[in-house]
Parts: sequence; structure tokens; C-alpha cells
Amino acid sequence: MTKKIVGIDLGGSSIKAAVVTFEGAILTKGVAETKVSEGREKVAERISALIRELAQEESGIAVGIGSPGSVDKKKGIVRFSPNFPDWNHFPLKDRIEEATGYMTFIENDAKAAALGEKWFGLAKGIDHFLVLTLGTGVGGGIISHGQSITGADGMGGELGHVNVIPDGALCGCGSKGCLETVASNTGMRRMALEGKSRFPNSLIFELSGDSRFGAREIFLAYSRKDRLAELIVRQFCWGLGRAIGSFVNIFNPRLVILTGGISQAAPYFLEEVVSVANEHVFLSLMHSFEVRPSDLRENAAILGAASVALENLSIRL
Amino acid sequence: MTKKIVGIDLGGSSIKAAVVTFEGAILTKGVAETKVSEGREKVAERISALIRELAQEESGIAVGIGSPGSVDKKKGIVRFSPNFPDWNHFPLKDRIEEATGYMTFIENDAKAAALGEKWFGLAKGIDHFLVLTLGTGVGGGIISHGQSITGADGMGGELGHVNVIPDGALCGCGSKGCLETVASNTGMRRMALEGKSRFPNSLIFELSGDSRFGAREIFLAYSRKDRLAELIVRQFCWGLGRAIGSFVNIFNPRLVILTGGISQAAPYFLEEVVSVANEHVFLSLMHSFEVRPSDLRENAAILGAASVALENLSIRL
Repeated sequence: MTKKIVGIDLGGSSIKAAVVTFEGAILTKGVAETKVSEGREKVAERISALIRELAQEESGIAVGIGSPGSVDKKKGIVRFSPNFPDWNHFPLKDRIEEATGYMTFIENDAKAAALGEKWFGLAKGIDHFLVLTLGTGVGGGIISHGQSITGADGMGGELGHVNVIPDGALCGCGSKGCLETVASNTGMRRMALEGKSRFPNSLIFELSGDSRFGAREIFLAYSRKDRLAELIVRQFCWGLGRAIGSFVNIFNPRLVILTGGISQAAPYFLEEVVSVANEHVFLSLMHSFEVRPSDLRENAAILGAASVALENLSIRL
Repeated sequence: MTKKIVGIDLGGSSIKAAVVTFEGAILTKGVAETKVSEGREKVAERISALIRELAQEESGIAVGIGSPGSVDKKKGIVRFSPNFPDWNHFPLKDRIEEATGYMTFIENDAKAAALGEKWFGLAKGIDHFLVLTLGTGVGGGIISHGQSITGADGMGGELGHVNVIPDGALCGCGSKGCLETVASNTGMRRMALEGKSRFPNSLIFELSGDSRFGAREIFLAYSRKDRLAELIVRQFCWGLGRAIGSFVNIFNPRLVILTGGISQAAPYFLEEVVSVANEHVFLSLMHSFEVRPSDLRENAAILGAASVALENLSIRL
């Protein structure tokens, strides 16, 4: 019987791995550089090497992988991934199984995060919840009636790509005015750059010097009452609040969990986001839901990846 | 064994009933006035009388009811219904079962319509589809992974109440800028009245005389290139298209079915709505879905109601 899982959090710069028990305890960890530019086969080899190193010839190991991009979990294929140029229809599951001999399951990283919350986080025992990952982009995971909602081709669940601003800014997904254009690191940075000519002395730019800046600097400037930061955070709160309101009317969830880097700024925005969300729901659904930042913190992605395997194994039991 | 179903389409002015076979054939029909003002117990009595009349002491009959408003299908309770003032937590299922002796199942009418499409309509054999009922309001039904998505309290699925216009018009649901404010009879009428002072000679008002008017007159005026009608239909198409785009990113459905009175005007708007929807989806989801008007026509509501019973019976088999 499978007793432990190797969870793999595949990111653009690093591959993080850990041996995780069925109860969510992390036993050992490992890490490797992704080196996307060396090509997908090399990346798959590095993932396999990491798994073998951590698993140490144990029997009964299963592997769960959270991958960026569009994943066909049934076929075990990464369809495409914006930051991994040659990953078109890449059979990642087969590659890892061939190289390691361990049963492997893959899923989109945001959907994996939702499974992680179900197995190990705030959503334990909750059959109706949503996860929004507020990071470089905005990812989404939906559990409704106890089931992961991924759509006919496994490409649904994209809560970050609902329209919140008609004719809004172009989005990386090819659409415009998506939630991601106001509630992600990329979107907040874009808004700051748009405001730079009007607010050249904004604290945002002072805090970040000449280097790249993002949500962290914007929320820090906001906490010091910087005007440009206030304008940006207002767009963030209104966009996120309206979107959550719509999601509540669609899914009637008990809980909306925020994860990803920006969720750490929740003390600055949570109250306003909840308030806007409640303005945009049926009267009978007001206060029917909670919005909370994840408590899995730095282990959220690894535990999410491990949960992909757990979820599949539990369906087979 | 149950062989036939009595489907009940409970509306604000009339109660429509029919005996329906498991294959969707309508054998006999009946109708009664609702007379909401006489109180909920009287309405329940009229429903029961209609069922007894149609069922004629047959054994093995089951009853399915599509009711407006918020329905707790598990408890068989109508929580509330905007047009039925005294229906707060009314145990409709129990009332009908006590009076008729037939096993009874109830559901919100828009969610019933989705089940009707699954059992008897365009969605036969399709596990991922949405139904939008474009009528007085905009209702929604979601089937994802073969399951009806209704949320933690059965109050989800409200696709007509996603925000499509930030700070838009107030909506009957208590929110603002909902899809219903631009894509329903009520919403289109409101837009026409708002435009009346600027366009007093619009064909819309000429076509309707002094009487109530709505989507029918607006689409007729649109077909004759009336300026106000063009402005309204544009809002309709953009709002509905953006919303469908968001739904596609969330649910990755194969099919979006339009039903309700306004769906009959599809030749005027379908192409534009599909075009706007495709502008608002992931590039990889473009043209992954169809938008089609229902082909159940005047029987859609009755067959939907019958399907509520079928769905529950099939789960029990």
C-alpha cells in the first residue's frame, strides 16, 4: 500500500519537492533549479532525480505534481504553460512514471492548491469552497459538492479570468479586464507604471529603487497613505470584491480561501474586499461565506501537489 | 415502479401541469390559476388537485415541481420567492405528498430547466453545460461533471446575478450591475425608459402603444434599425457575451443553452453574443463551446419540472 507521497511544486525558477505523509506531515525536502531553457526533457529528468533522491527506493510511493499552465489531468499531459515555451502537449506523467516507477498524478497548480486546502488546510470537511491564488497571476480552484470543478477538458476553474472591468486592460490570457488585471502582482505593477507620470514621487517607486517592484511595495506604500498606492489598492479591492460576489452567487460556497504572495497583505485589504463582495451578492447570501487567507503558508504549494495524488488515490480506494 | 411523472411548472399567474413519460413524451396537460393572493396553502391545494386530476389514481407516479425563488431541494422547502410574498420556508414537498400520496421533488425553475435540457433537450449526453433563462429575470442552471451545481445551501447557480457592469443599475436581487440588469425583459425595459426622454419617438414606444412593453418590442424595433433599440441591444449583447466568456473560463462547458422568451430573438443577437464571448475567454478556449437556443420551446418548463423527479429517481436507482 502507498504510505507516502512525494509532492512536486514545479515553478518557473525552481522545482520544490517533499515527502509528505497521508496526514500532511512533511518529512524531508529537496529542491532543484528548473532551468526551463534546457528543454522539457531535462526538466523532467531533474524532477525524476529529485523524486528518486527523496523516495530512496521506498515502495508504495505515489507522486503528485502541481504544474503551471493548462493540464490535462486524465491524460497526464501539460497542454501548454505560458512560461515554459516548449511544453506543448508534454506527457509529464508518463515521463516521470517511466523514469521512477512510481504512480504519478499531475494537475494545474492552482487547482492543486484547492485540493491542498481540502486535505490539509482551512477547507477540511468543507464541500463547497473556492481558492484564489493571488500571485504573479490569479489562479483559481473550485470545490463544489465535494468535487473539483475543472470542466469538459480540464481547462475550467479559471477564476482569475472573469471579466471585472468592461474594456479593461489587456490580460496575459488574451482577454481584457480580467480579475488578474487588477488583483495580481503583474496587474498591480501595471497600474503603478500607468500612474508613474502623474505620481512620479510616489513612495512605491522610492521603496523599490530601480529594481522590479510589485504588490509588496504597493501595499507598503498604501500603509503609509501614498496616494497612487491608495488608487491601486482601491481597484484591487473593488475588482476582487465584485468577483467574489459573483462567485458566491454562482457557487454558494462556505469559504473563499486566498493564497499566494499577495494574500499575506490581507490585513490591508480583507475587510474592504469582504464588504464589496457582500454588496454584490443576493440579499439572502449576505454573510453566508467567509473569506480567509490560507494558513498553509510556505508549504501550500507542496501540500497542494501531494494532494493531487491523495485525491486520485482516494477515488480509487 | 414509477412509470410516469407529473411535472408542475409553478408560475406567478398559472400552474401548468402535464403527465410525462420517462422518455419525455407529454401525455396529458392541465392548468390552473395560481392566485398567489389567496395564500400559499390554497396554492398548494390547487397544485395537489391538478396532480390528482391528471394522475387519476394511477400507482407509481412521481411528481416534479419547478418553483420560482430559492428552493431547498433536500428539505423540499421554498425558502422565499420574490413574487410569492408569504412563501417563506414553505414546506411545499410535504404539503403535496400529504395531499396526493405521490413522491414529490422540488427545485428552482431555472435549475429544473437545466435538468430538462439534460434529460430531453440539447444537452442529452453532455456532462458540462449551462442554461441561461432570459425572461422577466435571468435564471441560471449549471451542470458540471454531470452534476447540478447548486452550492452549500442550494442557493448557487445564479448566473444572472454576476456583475457585468461595475456600479451599474440596481438589480432586483439587491446588488447592482448584474447580468439581469441588461439581459432580461425587466432590464431591457428599464433601459428603454431611461432613453425615452432622449428618444421619445423611438419605434419601441410606437410599437407598444401605451401598454407594457419589453424585449419583444425592443428587438422588433432593432430589426428596423431604431437607434434606441440598437443602443439597448448592444448593452444586451456585450453584457451577455462578457458573462458567457467568464462562465466559459470558469466551467469549460461544451454548450450554453439559452431559454426563456428572449431566446426566441436569438437570430438578432446570437452571432454578436458569441463573438463577444469569444473575445473574453482564454485563447485556448476560443470556439470550445456552442451557444444555442433551447429546442424544447413551450414545453421547456414542464419537461424541466418532470426532470427534477427523474433526476432524483435516477440517483436512487
